[in-house]
Amino acid sequence: MSSSYSGNIKFTIFGQSHSPAIGVTVEGFPAGFAPDFEELAAFMARRAPGQSELSTPRKEADTPEFVSGLFEGKICGAPLTAIIRNTNARSKDYSELLAKPRPGHADYTANVKYGGAQDYTGGGHFSGRLTAPLCIVGGLCKQLLKKEDISVDARIKEIGGIEDETAMKEAILKAKAQGDSLGGIVECVVSGAPAGLGETMFGGMESRISQLVFGIPAVKGVEFGAGFAAARLRGSENNDPFEMIDGKVVTKTNNCGGILGGITNGMPLVFRVAIKPTPSIAKEQDTVNLLTGENTKLSVVGRHDPCIVPRAVPCIEAAAAITIYDALLEAGKVNA
Amino acid sequence: MSSSYSGNIKFTIFGQSHSPAIGVTVEGFPAGFAPDFEELAAFMARRAPGQSELSTPRKEADTPEFVSGLFEGKICGAPLTAIIRNTNARSKDYSELLAKPRPGHADYTANVKYGGAQDYTGGGHFSGRLTAPLCIVGGLCKQLLKKEDISVDARIKEIGGIEDETAMKEAILKAKAQGDSLGGIVECVVSGAPAGLGETMFGGMESRISQLVFGIPAVKGVEFGAGFAAARLRGSENNDPFEMIDGKVVTKTNNCGGILGGITNGMPLVFRVAIKPTPSIAKEQDTVNLLTGENTKLSVVGRHDPCIVPRAVPCIEAAAAITIYDALLEAGKVNA
Amino acid sequence: MSSSYSGNIKFTIFGQSHSPAIGVTVEGFPAGFAPDFEELAAFMARRAPGQSELSTPRKEADTPEFVSGLFEGKICGAPLTAIIRNTNARSKDYSELLAKPRPGHADYTANVKYGGAQDYTGGGHFSGRLTAPLCIVGGLCKQLLKKEDISVDARIKEIGGIEDETAMKEAILKAKAQGDSLGGIVECVVSGAPAGLGETMFGGMESRISQLVFGIPAVKGVEFGAGFAAARLRGSENNDPFEMIDGKVVTKTNNCGGILGGITNGMPLVFRVAIKPTPSIAKEQDTVNLLTGENTKLSVVGRHDPCIVPRAVPCIEAAAAITIYDALLEAGKVNA
Amino acid sequence: MSSSYSGNIKFTIFGQSHSPAIGVTVEGFPAGFAPDFEELAAFMARRAPGQSELSTPRKEADTPEFVSGLFEGKICGAPLTAIIRNTNARSKDYSELLAKPRPGHADYTANVKYGGAQDYTGGGHFSGRLTAPLCIVGGLCKQLLKKEDISVDARIKEIGGIEDETAMKEAILKAKAQGDSLGGIVECVVSGAPAGLGETMFGGMESRISQLVFGIPAVKGVEFGAGFAAARLRGSENNDPFEMIDGKVVTKTNNCGGILGGITNGMPLVFRVAIKPTPSIAKEQDTVNLLTGENTKLSVVGRHDPCIVPRAVPCIEAAAAITIYDALLEAGKVNA
Repeated sequence: MSSSYSGNIKFTIFGQSHSPAIGVTVEGFPAGFAPDFEELAAFMARRAPGQSELSTPRKEADTPEFVSGLFEGKICGAPLTAIIRNTNARSKDYSELLAKPRPGHADYTANVKYGGAQDYTGGGHFSGRLTAPLCIVGGLCKQLLKKEDISVDARIKEIGGIEDETAMKEAILKAKAQGDSLGGIVECVVSGAPAGLGETMFGGMESRISQLVFGIPAVKGVEFGAGFAAARLRGSENNDPFEMIDGKVVTKTNNCGGILGGITNGMPLVFRVAIKPTPSIAKEQDTVNLLTGENTKLSVVGRHDPCIVPRAVPCIEAAAAITIYDALLEAGKVNA
Repeated sequence: MSSSYSGNIKFTIFGQSHSPAIGVTVEGFPAGFAPDFEELAAFMARRAPGQSELSTPRKEADTPEFVSGLFEGKICGAPLTAIIRNTNARSKDYSELLAKPRPGHADYTANVKYGGAQDYTGGGHFSGRLTAPLCIVGGLCKQLLKKEDISVDARIKEIGGIEDETAMKEAILKAKAQGDSLGGIVECVVSGAPAGLGETMFGGMESRISQLVFGIPAVKGVEFGAGFAAARLRGSENNDPFEMIDGKVVTKTNNCGGILGGITNGMPLVFRVAIKPTPSIAKEQDTVNLLTGENTKLSVVGRHDPCIVPRAVPCIEAAAAITIYDALLEAGKVNA
Repeated sequence: MSSSYSGNIKFTIFGQSHSPAIGVTVEGFPAGFAPDFEELAAFMARRAPGQSELSTPRKEADTPEFVSGLFEGKICGAPLTAIIRNTNARSKDYSELLAKPRPGHADYTANVKYGGAQDYTGGGHFSGRLTAPLCIVGGLCKQLLKKEDISVDARIKEIGGIEDETAMKEAILKAKAQGDSLGGIVECVVSGAPAGLGETMFGGMESRISQLVFGIPAVKGVEFGAGFAAARLRGSENNDPFEMIDGKVVTKTNNCGGILGGITNGMPLVFRVAIKPTPSIAKEQDTVNLLTGENTKLSVVGRHDPCIVPRAVPCIEAAAAITIYDALLEAGKVNA
Repeated sequence: MSSSYSGNIKFTIFGQSHSPAIGVTVEGFPAGFAPDFEELAAFMARRAPGQSELSTPRKEADTPEFVSGLFEGKICGAPLTAIIRNTNARSKDYSELLAKPRPGHADYTANVKYGGAQDYTGGGHFSGRLTAPLCIVGGLCKQLLKKEDISVDARIKEIGGIEDETAMKEAILKAKAQGDSLGGIVECVVSGAPAGLGETMFGGMESRISQLVFGIPAVKGVEFGAGFAAARLRGSENNDPFEMIDGKVVTKTNNCGGILGGITNGMPLVFRVAIKPTPSIAKEQDTVNLLTGENTKLSVVGRHDPCIVPRAVPCIEAAAAITIYDALLEAGKVNA
């Protein structure tokens, strides 16, 4: 367990914010599969930084180099490894952070865990940048799911409690101007997944989607279907009645989010993800100096997003797509 | 993946509601550990049925027989297997369910997944009864954690939206009288866990706790610290400022729920779980007849809880205790 | 890792020689599969003790009780757990062994590993008796392979260097009369397995068969095809030339034992296993007293086989059958 | 399972003979560990090609670039990824091989498994070149073991049945001149490993060493201690008597190869590996044309070793070192 996912598809995400490269090694894509690299680039561009005034000005090409696993443009059956070179690094921005952990970041916990040996520059392995390799795997899974007529679409449900898109943008810019940040909620819908996917208990779809989704920095909550609201409904309200339509079993409502007993029921799989506000803020915060043991202040300089939510959307699609593809492999509905 | 958890501690939960027995096989308990079986029995009694008018009248001793892994009352290093015989079975209650799946239950999805071969009596392997073996593992982990001065305590936060205990009980009895059911929210707090537990990304504490918690029937949401509320806070509000107290690094608030970057920060680990209302209700519901393909009605007879939340509390403690013990093993802070 | 196998089929073997029961928990058998329990009993009888003057007089029914995973006689998709009650235990035979480890046995290494907490009676979890649950899994895999026209057959190749069956028996009885024991070599052939099974490198068929075969007590060597003899051949002698017969690719020889690059080539899969002589012998041997730290002598009393080889044959078939079934699952040629 | 090893240390080997790069991603090295890169280079040089007239003239720098997992020259706790660029590729040598599988190679089995999508140039992912990344992991494990005073040393025991070194070389050159090849036997000894390493049954040291060793191309047999010879000994000859020397429990002989019940006993761990003769030979061989379905002839052109045994020696040390380090992690004797 750690930066590896080890289901029927297996991958390990590697790299640090300022290491020579970041990337991923994957096993489980079907031999003969010809990825659409333009489509993948378009998918990855959705999470890339430097796209607008709403996100960090750090610009990177983020074009993966596939150093293994392909032959004549197709998956050849050997492990697929893609690397993305880190360029435009500005590690001096971060020199202060070994001494002064940023509130809300992994600086302190990484220091405890790795005894000071961690790469603290730019958040090291804990940087949101590590979601780029996740999107490589997820983007390719989305392409494989499309062949099975399964779509995975996430959207921003709210930012800072606001659901109106124009108002969201204004709120982000206002927070940015104040040296502050906002969080939000993303909703993801998987359509076209067959009934019968998932395993019992700890192999249920909720367990598996959560394992990946909580691997995305800043995620603090996950709910399926009615989720927390279901806790306030009565059984007669929350249960989804079955009915036959054109000889197909469907449910009249979808409070279960398409999952019963951990297994898909053929209805859309729906879940929502709570994303905390970006911890990196210019506003002065209280922290400690780990070297001197004194209380001190910190104002996080350097480039960061006032709101990570928009860039989290493709990452959450990636997590869902990987889980669904993994479950299809498991069910023998596709072959690796 | 499925009814197995395969971390540093490994176990597989087996059994069906009406099979000869249910139980669990575990690897990872330390040789020489002498379990307190009375304490374990007391812990398991918290989830046992038939305790009050608030829960199902199905009464079972639920006393585990340890058929392997013990020698002279101590863990001997070999896999530990405990079985609980199923008694007082009333499988005729369930004969209708092969044809008519219960809304909100796994009857339909199990039928699709197993092509009709599933044990549909009493929910089979999907029965809440399978949380008893989970409590065996979790109860023993709690005993091991106590040796490390780590406590795991869950409590009912709300039932049907109500936080007052007396009002909760009335609401449950009222729902029961109406042939209906209620859900709720359970909050769990782990105190005394050292900083530095957990791995990166998919091995983070949120990912691991969620994998186990979503394995408990009826769980539809999990949030850590401020959770979904954090999505509506600003970074300056949500970040937990660090401070030094008696030479120890602590945080002034705990919106992160004791987890940063997936790794414990030494503050209490806090999470909440959304539990849906018991799907088994006497009220008539719409369903389908899988044999005839017609729409039909169903009123679930047999014994069931009007509210599963009270019995879920120890199960959630079990899931948390297992994850913490697993992380301690991983960190080499305890030895198997 | 340990008493669990975690491939596409997963199982954990539990129990000690004198614990209440031994058994196994398995995930991965296909829902709807109706095991032939008489055939399984016949298979298990091949390894059962007390069958002839050539094996230990310890007699046990060894009839497994399936406490979970079956419904109306068929695999229902839930984990399968079978237990075999230990009867006819004579643990006083073994009381001396905590102090005096038996040469060639795991008594000493278990004592170091478990710090004295191990169940030392009858070898505890290290007893050859634990191969009975392996035969439950393997016997059922053999039944599943038969449906795919795949057979797994092992035979005694030699005992004490002797290949003639009558001479073998005499040698065993002679060794027994002298309070000594013999080892031997078992050859296993898998016929009918399709080409293309197995994964690359550490997932190759040799790696996987070995992992299971070395899990059988007393196994000290494994070789595939020409094996160690191949090390003395030239490439032109050892390579198996391909030829077309009736439009099918075959090889003229089978020095590779049906495996190239870890993957089956469609020819019979052939391997041999070296089994050491039973370490339990009546002859006096040198050992140490772990309590006093003195050198001492030991003559192993109690019931044991003068030659374990005949009883190892079905265990090796079991290991091979499990691996082949596991690889078929992996290749999507059968569904769990 | 496949090109991944997933114990307490986890790694995936990627790349093809002529892909842009080969390499490995590893989790499990201890944060703060400062590898000696010169020592690693020296270790890797032992398996590098182009060193003498005895091996393939294909010359490669084989200098790994560590693109992640290091910070200021030390392991930082994030996954370690090293890549080795493929240069000096001559893939036109191999164009014939898609149609005509080389006897003794994986060309045919890969073609069946991957349905023709495999990278067939230079053996693709099945190339012996993929042992270079294995040596990166193993070389680093050897450095970690040295800190624990554990050494791993393999040597050529025989080549083509010859044990004399001068005669070996002559035999190799003679075989080369005849367009043929030789195999051999390598013996590996691990000294200084503590007693108590390894798990029960399938987690025993023999199982785990074998899983890795059989991942090395051309390995067809593994035996521990007396191995196959033990099958011809009597119990009284094969059992290793215990004795006390300076208060330490040792054995007078080491027929068990330092492993009892799968667990180390503190004596040297000894095993031997059978390596088949290099299948690539200039001599004309019979094969088939997979496109036309006709029988045909093949003479393997291109660069290859007349005997791979010398270059296999460090690979076998690597496999042993990885397993021992993995077992130390498991036993909590070192921390990741």
